[in-house]
Amino acid sequence: MKFGLMLGLIGLLLIPGWADAQDPLKSWNDTAAKKSIVSYVDKVTREGSPDFVPEPERIAVFDNDGCLWAEQPMYFQAFFIFDRIKGLAPEHPEWKDEQPFASVLKGDVKAALAGGEAALIKMAMATHAGMTTEDFEKIVSDWLATAKHPTTGKRYTEMVYQPMLELLGYLRANGFKTFIVSGGGIEFMRPWTQRVYGIPPEQVIGSSIKTKFELRDGKPVLVRLPEISFIDDKEGKPVGINSHIGRRPIAAFGNSDGDLQMLQWTAGSKRLSLCLYVHHTDADREWAYDRDSHIGRLDRGLEEAKANGWTVVNMKDDWKVIYPE
Amino acid sequence: MKFGLMLGLIGLLLIPGWADAQDPLKSWNDTAAKKSIVSYVDKVTREGSPDFVPEPERIAVFDNDGCLWAEQPMYFQAFFIFDRIKGLAPEHPEWKDEQPFASVLKGDVKAALAGGEAALIKMAMATHAGMTTEDFEKIVSDWLATAKHPTTGKRYTEMVYQPMLELLGYLRANGFKTFIVSGGGIEFMRPWTQRVYGIPPEQVIGSSIKTKFELRDGKPVLVRLPEISFIDDKEGKPVGINSHIGRRPIAAFGNSDGDLQMLQWTAGSKRLSLCLYVHHTDADREWAYDRDSHIGRLDRGLEEAKANGWTVVNMKDDWKVIYPE
Repeated sequence: MKFGLMLGLIGLLLIPGWADAQDPLKSWNDTAAKKSIVSYVDKVTREGSPDFVPEPERIAVFDNDGCLWAEQPMYFQAFFIFDRIKGLAPEHPEWKDEQPFASVLKGDVKAALAGGEAALIKMAMATHAGMTTEDFEKIVSDWLATAKHPTTGKRYTEMVYQPMLELLGYLRANGFKTFIVSGGGIEFMRPWTQRVYGIPPEQVIGSSIKTKFELRDGKPVLVRLPEISFIDDKEGKPVGINSHIGRRPIAAFGNSDGDLQMLQWTAGSKRLSLCLYVHHTDADREWAYDRDSHIGRLDRGLEEAKANGWTVVNMKDDWKVIYPE
Repeated sequence: MKFGLMLGLIGLLLIPGWADAQDPLKSWNDTAAKKSIVSYVDKVTREGSPDFVPEPERIAVFDNDGCLWAEQPMYFQAFFIFDRIKGLAPEHPEWKDEQPFASVLKGDVKAALAGGEAALIKMAMATHAGMTTEDFEKIVSDWLATAKHPTTGKRYTEMVYQPMLELLGYLRANGFKTFIVSGGGIEFMRPWTQRVYGIPPEQVIGSSIKTKFELRDGKPVLVRLPEISFIDDKEGKPVGINSHIGRRPIAAFGNSDGDLQMLQWTAGSKRLSLCLYVHHTDADREWAYDRDSHIGRLDRGLEEAKANGWTVVNMKDDWKVIYPE
């Protein structure tokens, strides 16, 4: 190397912030979590490494709620359901006397959810079915453009985790194909995952209701039916991964016991794998919850992570920022 | 351009066969079918064209049986089923007296199929379920490595259509993402579609049975259950496309009435679309069949193609060769 060029490079390294700006994971503190990610990616992507994985097999799967965006005080899709019920109420005068709708219309979320899973499914079907897939896409997009989170006042798509956005980009820059594998509704996510996460609709896996092909005045449509097709949670996640991707991931990212089987499935790969849990430990900047939470409960997962040496992100200590600025 | 270089290029163009070698669709005769494909691709990919489609939306879907590989005298997966029943017979002494297995073991395919759909499902479940997804992948790969077609003597993966291989490559070279959307078994196709068609497992959609996540001696596996999950045929094709891809294709390729709804769904795109039927008209080099065939029946589809101006490939006249040499 020429002496002048070398001096120039040294100079660049001394400019404050330059190294930071070049760091693809610049919102991550230099703690063990970040080191485990960078070390893993180096091992599976460096030519000649004993753990090298060919590019087409570099499949990375991410949970969404609580892993890529926040999930408190309840899943954001639940806010969508409640807003939608209010919006549809004029067309359903009978809801004034019918539970759980009556409680929602009175603004009593707790009473609305008291009916448990049956009530939730009833509300989900009333708000997610009956229209075409294209109409539903527009409904979701319109809601996201205006709805705001009750405590942060942010738009829901602004409550994504900046460190995870960087991780998605870092993996893709290293030849990984990134997928979402969420218990949330597949068609609730697809309208915005490309714009927000850089993940195209065909790489989004989620829970779904059935659809039916119809010709309406000669125009082909898919109508959303009030019938569950697939629940992409817990044991369902490896099933969904196999159905949609057809090969085993080598990296998996979650935050709750609902992701445990996805992480186990990934850890069972013949390739070197990376399993990572985001642990919500930051009550000041986000929320702190784990073993006793009714949303995103993380209990068995913490034990398994410890036993298997999986990476556990301590949000408070490992992340410089939470949301994009 | 320098005069010498120009002369050299002109010289190249005059070398017989050179232009042909550069043609990505060189196994296609210069008939209307080829022209419609090339014209379409030009319109949707040329910057500034009024029909330009951004690359992520260039989704092309292909039927498999009878569209990418042959399907006579019966679906190749049926040969797999019969061979598998013979292979499993020693473990099932009861099959000697149980239909439809007894007929298969006697070599009487017609009698085995006389039981209709119920018999077929019984045979499919006996041969496709009960093992892990990884074991099934090996079973399919082992079978394909040795099995030969009864009349051509070729391996089944040698009975793919050379012009369609070129079409797949041509579309991909023009920024299309190519998917298989087949009535055949999704896990029967995935072990070989990358090698044979250049289509990775995550871009294969097909019919499926259910699977169940289990830990066997601490090892995570997916066990294949004898229960149908999804039939990816007729009205099921748009449903499968929506479930797996989440956006509407702009190009669709089929050969039977089972593909009609997939072509209708594609034709309903807001973008300029290309719908194409492969018409089996070549009794000498392949098979000739359409309206009256029990396999790959093409009847309503021919009418719709005519009414809507879809491209119909006349195999005999439009294709220079059928199989790869």
